[in-house]
Amino acid sequence: MKKVNIGIIGLGTIGKGVYKILLQRREFFKRKYGIDFHIAKVCDKNAKIRKRLNIKPKIFTSSFQNVISDKNIDVVIELIGGINPARDIILRSLQSGKKVITANKALLSQDLSLILSAAKKNKTQIRFEASVCGGIPIIKSLTEGLVCDRIESMVGIINGTSNYILSRMMQEECSFFEALAEARKKGFAERNPSLDIKGFDSAHKLSILAYLAFGKYVSQKDIYVKGIEDISPLDIKYAKELGLVIKLLAIAKKVDKNVLEVRVHPALIPRIHPLANVGGVFNAVYVKGELVGDMLFFGKGAGQMPTASAVISDLFDLAMGKGSAESPQKDIIKKIKRIDNIQSKYYIRFMAIDKPGVLAKISGVLAKRKISIASVTQTERQRARVVPVVMLTHDVREKDIRLALEEIDRLAIIRKNSVVIHREEF
Amino acid sequence: MKKVNIGIIGLGTIGKGVYKILLQRREFFKRKYGIDFHIAKVCDKNAKIRKRLNIKPKIFTSSFQNVISDKNIDVVIELIGGINPARDIILRSLQSGKKVITANKALLSQDLSLILSAAKKNKTQIRFEASVCGGIPIIKSLTEGLVCDRIESMVGIINGTSNYILSRMMQEECSFFEALAEARKKGFAERNPSLDIKGFDSAHKLSILAYLAFGKYVSQKDIYVKGIEDISPLDIKYAKELGLVIKLLAIAKKVDKNVLEVRVHPALIPRIHPLANVGGVFNAVYVKGELVGDMLFFGKGAGQMPTASAVISDLFDLAMGKGSAESPQKDIIKKIKRIDNIQSKYYIRFMAIDKPGVLAKISGVLAKRKISIASVTQTERQRARVVPVVMLTHDVREKDIRLALEEIDRLAIIRKNSVVIHREEF
Repeated sequence: MKKVNIGIIGLGTIGKGVYKILLQRREFFKRKYGIDFHIAKVCDKNAKIRKRLNIKPKIFTSSFQNVISDKNIDVVIELIGGINPARDIILRSLQSGKKVITANKALLSQDLSLILSAAKKNKTQIRFEASVCGGIPIIKSLTEGLVCDRIESMVGIINGTSNYILSRMMQEECSFFEALAEARKKGFAERNPSLDIKGFDSAHKLSILAYLAFGKYVSQKDIYVKGIEDISPLDIKYAKELGLVIKLLAIAKKVDKNVLEVRVHPALIPRIHPLANVGGVFNAVYVKGELVGDMLFFGKGAGQMPTASAVISDLFDLAMGKGSAESPQKDIIKKIKRIDNIQSKYYIRFMAIDKPGVLAKISGVLAKRKISIASVTQTERQRARVVPVVMLTHDVREKDIRLALEEIDRLAIIRKNSVVIHREEF
Repeated sequence: MKKVNIGIIGLGTIGKGVYKILLQRREFFKRKYGIDFHIAKVCDKNAKIRKRLNIKPKIFTSSFQNVISDKNIDVVIELIGGINPARDIILRSLQSGKKVITANKALLSQDLSLILSAAKKNKTQIRFEASVCGGIPIIKSLTEGLVCDRIESMVGIINGTSNYILSRMMQEECSFFEALAEARKKGFAERNPSLDIKGFDSAHKLSILAYLAFGKYVSQKDIYVKGIEDISPLDIKYAKELGLVIKLLAIAKKVDKNVLEVRVHPALIPRIHPLANVGGVFNAVYVKGELVGDMLFFGKGAGQMPTASAVISDLFDLAMGKGSAESPQKDIIKKIKRIDNIQSKYYIRFMAIDKPGVLAKISGVLAKRKISIASVTQTERQRARVVPVVMLTHDVREKDIRLALEEIDRLAIIRKNSVVIHREEF
């Protein structure tokens, strides 16, 4: 029987889940796969947790040094999160030839190249299925299932908190703050939710996915990021009427042979698109491959057991001798497109005073910048002196939209800053 | 550099795709993975194809014996389909210690146990990702991604032809035959589409998926199968009004600790369910795991390149030393539930003459069998003497519904056979 000695560092929510599953299913894994996953050491800085989880004193330590220096340990599972000391733990474990599993998206999004090359240099492996989309085997699918394909684009809903908030706003027509309060009450938003709602958590995950899908490491500073804080119930209402649904999307798309677009922002998508029905805290990634065509992976993006399950699938792969999660893609991407230069469709809402000639003025400015309009709606004429004018554009360069709106917002007929939201079609 | 000698048997649509990809990407695979996938032999009974594909005479053969007996070949890719001689090819290849890849769902659904034990006995491997859902890595996800989970249920739309027909009927409110004709014209239905529209193709795939998800081989005779031929535009219209969508579902569900339900039939599902938006020829599988919760895999279920891509992902796994596609589940399922005994919700349409007391008579019979009604609609009172009465039931035993309808259909007030369709909620 093959024995795998495991050191778990960090007994937070996910660490506890991993510990529990490994204990509970040890005999089953032995019988079925002939592998004995033996927990050799468990580490948490909070020593009180030992008693609470009934961990034997001789395998518990509150210093991660004791795990890294234990020659007996084959695989280190790092689940403390954050940059330090997680990075030190991972790098030193790899340097001592141990295999490593981590769920640490913040660290990976920053140091993925460094960590992968440390694994390679020390002839060992690192896997990180749990770092993106919890229980959904998206990394396995990109690196193994689609191993011979070339990915054209990847569009994900990869932050459960934001998706919950937007879903509630759609359903209840409530404000962002009401929806956020509800998410907090239900435990779907952290005390400080800014990483989630401002799009940075999505950007972390996107840089990992983009690397796997396109073989190009994209650093955080090269990802355009916009959050959902400014989305108003008014725009959600108009979007609905137009058959559109609002989602916080993480997009990585090959736009030229060697140019990539990488961005996170709210976007309107057609109600009938498979991503439109990804509600609540669910996650999904829509992938277009040259060979496989369109594909969607949907599931719980967070939570103790889905994430722990992903950690253990990595453990199996390492035990079975499967290598690091490497991108199967050729490193052909040379350039990340600046957001100014991307082409997109847009939704725009102007708040204009209600008098003849308004539309002519607005469309005059748009025409000057060669912004072509797909539709115009002005629904609430009777109700107020200042009325919303909603426009959908065809494909336009982002910079042109920005400049046009700056000019329009200076017009005397415009009473509030205009709202602009990306539209994605697939 | 690791060299893998490959024999391809069968140069139909998928075989050609595999041949093409292996040739085109050989240098890339060498460079990136250090594996040389070398096509050692190509076999097709039609010798003319050799010239058409520009295959060197010395690697071409029209007798599969020459592939099986070639000691040099490491992996045999069987892509001729059907039972004979595919079965012989696979078994004899395994017996001679070769690894095997196949996309042959008809054969696997019949002889999966036999074939898997032949692989085990001869200490070699067989993989078959391409046999179910084309390019979607569903087998990899079930056997590796969810390796430590226990699957509770699996509901799939796994026949593209039927899904195309039902999607068109929903969209266009056309008849089954009109939609079938359109599917034929577009190349989405074969000349003889009965395997597809009668549900047998779904049942083939379901027995493979059920084995992987539940560790229990379910033979075709234990799967209840009903096709889509009798679905009428009328019921589709009423379903729509009730917020329901019709799909041909392949269902495998653990209903008790050791009892499994395995069935293929049209079913009505809520419009907001992720499966409801799987349109056209797309496939999807909705999986519920004890740990991971709900998960959906969506993509192209057929076609040359998606399927060829799945074959090649198997090839990588074999080259990387990954074993056979084995079910990670304990073999705890002891019993397959008979369709008579399953519990389901139903949609029923009666065609009754329009006079007072009709509803009382119908509901009297239903009450006698303890069939509880969730809603009743009777929409077209003014139009005809015989009117449709549409009922949705709560959970009921299938047999009770059948007996009740037999009795109701004998009533004088009923003018046509009643229509009954399963409803699934998730």
